[in-house]
Amino acid sequence: MPFQRKNIATMGGYVPGEQVDNDDVIKLNTNENPYPPSPEVAARLKGINSASLRRYPSPTAEPFRESAARCHGIAAENIVPTNGGDELLRLVLTTFAGPGETVAVTRPTYSLYRVLTEIQDNKLHEITLEDTWDLPKEFIQQLSVSNAKVCILVNPHAPTGKLLSVEALTEIASNFDGLLLVDEAYVDFVDLARKHDAVPMAIEHNNVLLLRTLSKGYSLAGLRFGYGIGSAELISPILYKTRDSYNTDYIAQQLADAAIQSRDYARAIWQKVREDRELLADALTKLNFAVTPSQANFLLAKLPDGRSAESLYLQLRSENILVRFFDQERLRDKLRISVGTPSENAALIAALTAKFVCTTE
Amino acid sequence: MPFQRKNIATMGGYVPGEQVDNDDVIKLNTNENPYPPSPEVAARLKGINSASLRRYPSPTAEPFRESAARCHGIAAENIVPTNGGDELLRLVLTTFAGPGETVAVTRPTYSLYRVLTEIQDNKLHEITLEDTWDLPKEFIQQLSVSNAKVCILVNPHAPTGKLLSVEALTEIASNFDGLLLVDEAYVDFVDLARKHDAVPMAIEHNNVLLLRTLSKGYSLAGLRFGYGIGSAELISPILYKTRDSYNTDYIAQQLADAAIQSRDYARAIWQKVREDRELLADALTKLNFAVTPSQANFLLAKLPDGRSAESLYLQLRSENILVRFFDQERLRDKLRISVGTPSENAALIAALTAKFVCTTE
Repeated sequence: MPFQRKNIATMGGYVPGEQVDNDDVIKLNTNENPYPPSPEVAARLKGINSASLRRYPSPTAEPFRESAARCHGIAAENIVPTNGGDELLRLVLTTFAGPGETVAVTRPTYSLYRVLTEIQDNKLHEITLEDTWDLPKEFIQQLSVSNAKVCILVNPHAPTGKLLSVEALTEIASNFDGLLLVDEAYVDFVDLARKHDAVPMAIEHNNVLLLRTLSKGYSLAGLRFGYGIGSAELISPILYKTRDSYNTDYIAQQLADAAIQSRDYARAIWQKVREDRELLADALTKLNFAVTPSQANFLLAKLPDGRSAESLYLQLRSENILVRFFDQERLRDKLRISVGTPSENAALIAALTAKFVCTTE
Repeated sequence: MPFQRKNIATMGGYVPGEQVDNDDVIKLNTNENPYPPSPEVAARLKGINSASLRRYPSPTAEPFRESAARCHGIAAENIVPTNGGDELLRLVLTTFAGPGETVAVTRPTYSLYRVLTEIQDNKLHEITLEDTWDLPKEFIQQLSVSNAKVCILVNPHAPTGKLLSVEALTEIASNFDGLLLVDEAYVDFVDLARKHDAVPMAIEHNNVLLLRTLSKGYSLAGLRFGYGIGSAELISPILYKTRDSYNTDYIAQQLADAAIQSRDYARAIWQKVREDRELLADALTKLNFAVTPSQANFLLAKLPDGRSAESLYLQLRSENILVRFFDQERLRDKLRISVGTPSENAALIAALTAKFVCTTE
């Protein structure tokens, strides 16, 4: 492996969920939104003149930044637009956690975090979740002794869908000397009854950043658009120093702006996904899966009778139904299933029923 | 500057050339192509259905990668698509030059290189160009003693437009223990008579990477699309390890593919820019500017009579003509002028004539 830095040569690399170019596949494996983006996004796309592409875009995605700030009731200085949420994750390490410094995450969590720490040559400190997937009681103490510069929590948690309250996040941030990055990739799907909004807390604390993405909530995974929310002093070095100088393109800026301005459309979808999530959870429970209550647009479901999740994943795959299997401790007996359309969910349940319900033949 | 790494806290950040949202401005400051992208790009854009954005794009921009490989007569394994050429610059440092390790560049050069080394916490080794803007005779020796892991050369050179021959690049690569990154952002504008093609050399050497971008040659600065070319063993860790997992978006992939497939359209533009470059150089020379012969889509022009380039830049700016002034040693008496359309170039010359030709009033 000539010329590679040692940490790069020895690392593995992130393996994204399978992408298929086949409309017959029921794709419940990468938490994509089952509905298209808003009509306003379609209209904005239609109105783009390719001639405008010859010029550089706004380096800081200015129209989107203003719209996002208005949407959250904060200032543009509290927002940094990024090329997908992934870019923000990388930029937080680039900006705040140098090689050899520690980054704390939970175990399990979104697997990209580990990969990013390997690239940045950080030390990774993993704090194991309880059997209920809650943070351990001594989480704050463990975080403190880890001496971490950055702690990344995905909330709602992946791959379980568990939600930490704003109060719990506040307690962590208030007792942590480092920077807390809360990855809110799935936060749009949290039940309204929870009244969950971490934005005010993030703005008030000088050590909290939130990650948002348009990939899930706004049906724009193909567009690569996310943003960070935080105090100006945390946002500023990312926006003006470590970010690639033109990190988002003109069309993406336009469509992201249209998406966030047509939030009411997205809101209706979020509600639909929440309702379908509960229906899907009920159906899986009836098939004796143990389903973790989820506030995201996916469910982590443990198979009945200790059956192999990997072989079920492969069986479903052979029937053109894709779900996600993680070859990791505590997850090998479970599948992560994205909430699809009612007909996609029904097709999955039908396929599972054929396998798990005893038939008298 | 709470939480920032020391190298980030102390660095300045890249300052992009001024972007304006005003069609009355004659914009000759950021080397954008003065012509729109190809009709095939416009048609592909028109055909995109926003519904396809709900799914993740190909992680490796697969259709584009194949097209680019065909275009250069190489294999897809020799190509890594990136979010603009800037992303490749960053990824080369991420992959091959760790903190504390040395990166060699020339002085002057594209100012982003320094910023990227500051972010990565590299040591920067600058090798000063001759008064003619050629590499110094002892360049290879200086490079060798620098112990650099990576050397970045922009070719044609920015901000002068000087071209290093493939033979010269080959000699450098053959005598360098590190990795040579040749930033070919402007290579499309090299005179055909030069028969300049560094691709075979890059594929043959295991320590050479080329950077290409669609920003200039394909009129797609707003799209953010570039790619690296090199041996599979250099491309692979960037493609599968250090690159953000979905670094280019679905629409950009599609339009980049359309652009590279309609290369004949771009070729005609390159020829037009070459011809207009010579006309502009002649006109500036007649006004007693000293113009460096350029193989790029810009000219570095030294002002007559030791006048202040900054004040000329500001004067032109007040007349809605933007050119680039660099507040750097050896450049403060010069302006970098992008080649525009014939009418834009004529407007610039008219403005300069009014200032530099003695009139009998």
